[in-house]
Amino acid sequence: MSNKVLFSEADHHYMARALQLAGQGLYTTDPNPRVGCVIVQQPPGQPECIVGEGFHLRAGEPHAEIHALDAAGEHAKGATAYVTLEPCSHTGRTGPCAVALANAQVARVVVAMVDPNPQVSGRGIELLKAAGIEVDVGLLEPDARALNPGFITRMQHKRPFVRLKMAMSLDGRTAMGSGESQWITGPEARCHVQRLRARSSAILSGVESIIMDDSRLTLRAEQLQLDNAESVVQRQPLRVILDTRLRLPLAAACLSEPGRTLVMTTPAHSPEKRAKLTAAGAEVHVFEAGSDGRLPLNELLDWLAEHEQVNELLVETGATLAGALLDAKLVDELQLFVAPTLLGGEAKPLFALPGLSRMADQRRLKIHDIRAVGSDWRIIATPQPD
Amino acid sequence: MSNKVLFSEADHHYMARALQLAGQGLYTTDPNPRVGCVIVQQPPGQPECIVGEGFHLRAGEPHAEIHALDAAGEHAKGATAYVTLEPCSHTGRTGPCAVALANAQVARVVVAMVDPNPQVSGRGIELLKAAGIEVDVGLLEPDARALNPGFITRMQHKRPFVRLKMAMSLDGRTAMGSGESQWITGPEARCHVQRLRARSSAILSGVESIIMDDSRLTLRAEQLQLDNAESVVQRQPLRVILDTRLRLPLAAACLSEPGRTLVMTTPAHSPEKRAKLTAAGAEVHVFEAGSDGRLPLNELLDWLAEHEQVNELLVETGATLAGALLDAKLVDELQLFVAPTLLGGEAKPLFALPGLSRMADQRRLKIHDIRAVGSDWRIIATPQPD
Repeated sequence: MSNKVLFSEADHHYMARALQLAGQGLYTTDPNPRVGCVIVQQPPGQPECIVGEGFHLRAGEPHAEIHALDAAGEHAKGATAYVTLEPCSHTGRTGPCAVALANAQVARVVVAMVDPNPQVSGRGIELLKAAGIEVDVGLLEPDARALNPGFITRMQHKRPFVRLKMAMSLDGRTAMGSGESQWITGPEARCHVQRLRARSSAILSGVESIIMDDSRLTLRAEQLQLDNAESVVQRQPLRVILDTRLRLPLAAACLSEPGRTLVMTTPAHSPEKRAKLTAAGAEVHVFEAGSDGRLPLNELLDWLAEHEQVNELLVETGATLAGALLDAKLVDELQLFVAPTLLGGEAKPLFALPGLSRMADQRRLKIHDIRAVGSDWRIIATPQPD
Repeated sequence: MSNKVLFSEADHHYMARALQLAGQGLYTTDPNPRVGCVIVQQPPGQPECIVGEGFHLRAGEPHAEIHALDAAGEHAKGATAYVTLEPCSHTGRTGPCAVALANAQVARVVVAMVDPNPQVSGRGIELLKAAGIEVDVGLLEPDARALNPGFITRMQHKRPFVRLKMAMSLDGRTAMGSGESQWITGPEARCHVQRLRARSSAILSGVESIIMDDSRLTLRAEQLQLDNAESVVQRQPLRVILDTRLRLPLAAACLSEPGRTLVMTTPAHSPEKRAKLTAAGAEVHVFEAGSDGRLPLNELLDWLAEHEQVNELLVETGATLAGALLDAKLVDELQLFVAPTLLGGEAKPLFALPGLSRMADQRRLKIHDIRAVGSDWRIIATPQPD
């Protein structure tokens, strides 16, 4: 395995196609990664051509390589397979993909990135090499990584990729002083948020936001504006509500929506309310509070990765929880939807960052993208190291 | 005079050149407007060519038309003159430009916009027409208007064009709770602000900002990054400090800088302090406070237009004055320099908008431009009518 290979223009072309295919699983593969595969044959004296391609659509269904091999049939023999993620070496429902590629007698496999799970990373590649197949690794790796930020973070760090979404006014306000906030941003921004939900394994919110807005935290097919919206909404992201003092109303709208609602609380609270919430459809989980009396955010995120296979976690919440996550350095990405409006100095702040009192302690961000979304603007940023 | 003329491609070309020339006076013509002129001759059977061009550089020096006519000499006869603003009909230091054009026997004058002063608007054009010259008006008028927002506002509404500049964090904060704010934005943004100052007749600030930062409110040649920086800084914009209770320190840095400092205050304050400030270099002006005990903003702006010929007024201040100007609908343009950083909920807000408590009362803006300025972002917006 070497990263020193000089990939050809054709290699780039076919891997780009494989990445594009992988993206078709963006809203459906969870908790599996999005993976695409293209198989290219070069008959002697003829131009090269794609003989099979595929992508992983849904957990439990075949991997991308199997779809592509099925389509290629006997044309896979001697061909080059482009895969966005190292072929698996474990026996899943369809057998290890590395074995399937070897059995099909492909001549070469180009892999965008190795498996991010340190426990199995490189095994698929070794298996292919042992079968005499040429393997080249690292083509368009940044693009391949961008497809699966959550899966990679879960595999490598045993926690979810945390994406914090906030809708704000130009003066950095998320709601009026009263809590009134519907709607700061327009329908296009809300469609973007629906799609952020759709690609996420789970949505995290504080109980305060739920009490204030009675948010459902669900996908709505009509707002997704996707051709496969009806299929996408079959999987509702897990709803996770942080509720230290177990204040979630039994009548909360999210409890009667399709999909599961987890309520994370601390031990000190009424077993009766817990039972009632469970009866109302919530799954209540108890964590020991930290020394600050709050839910332990680090532990809770680790738990979500371990027990619920949460890859991408979308946080939709207010200033307190947003600030606590930022302070704990648990935010991987910020998506700010900025409306061209001013709400004034008495409106709710974007982040509570208690103790931040000197310019030297400011929280620097890196802005990756600013673009118009309807009449609003979307800013994608990441926290910078201190 | 008609706006129905269909201007030719060549007309557009030469007027665009005249607009470009006018822009060369951006930092120096104050209180006069920026004006450019191009004179084009079309010798029979030959391609047309520019025989003279010019722009107004500085009040007291010749107008654009005079420079262009001087350059054209006898070639002006029978030519077309393109002027970004209606030629003047009054006798200034060089005589009325309309008369000069007529005397030079140009055949046609194309004017981008009529004189915005309702008292003289159209007189220059009438004078040209009376001399038998063909006059066409309205070519690239929006561009011509954009050159002189302040001059136009002063002529038409007898008040300055108010541009509010603020440097803020991504969460809408202009300073830490302590007032510490240097520096939120980077050197490129500060260069932009220097240029905003350079094009302004005056800079308005609240005394609180001066006390906090001891701002000099001056142009600094080295920060302007202009070829003609040394010439530009010969004219320091008027500094106007709102100081209801006459708290400006006698040692304030701005008082010992080149240029004038006006201190606007209310009558109730110590004549002694007034005398001392005057001795320290300030010009103290007294206005009756409004019923809210504050300086009357409307009246004060009108005064600046009338007595100091203030075209563009740059406001550099904090949340209270910024909010008061916005509430009084006195802000024509917002320029927000946004740094990719978070200062948190305890930091100073962008706008104090007391009484704004319902979403229905939010202050809508129209965003005209968002662009990167170094590692910061500049947003240009205008308040929208309710």
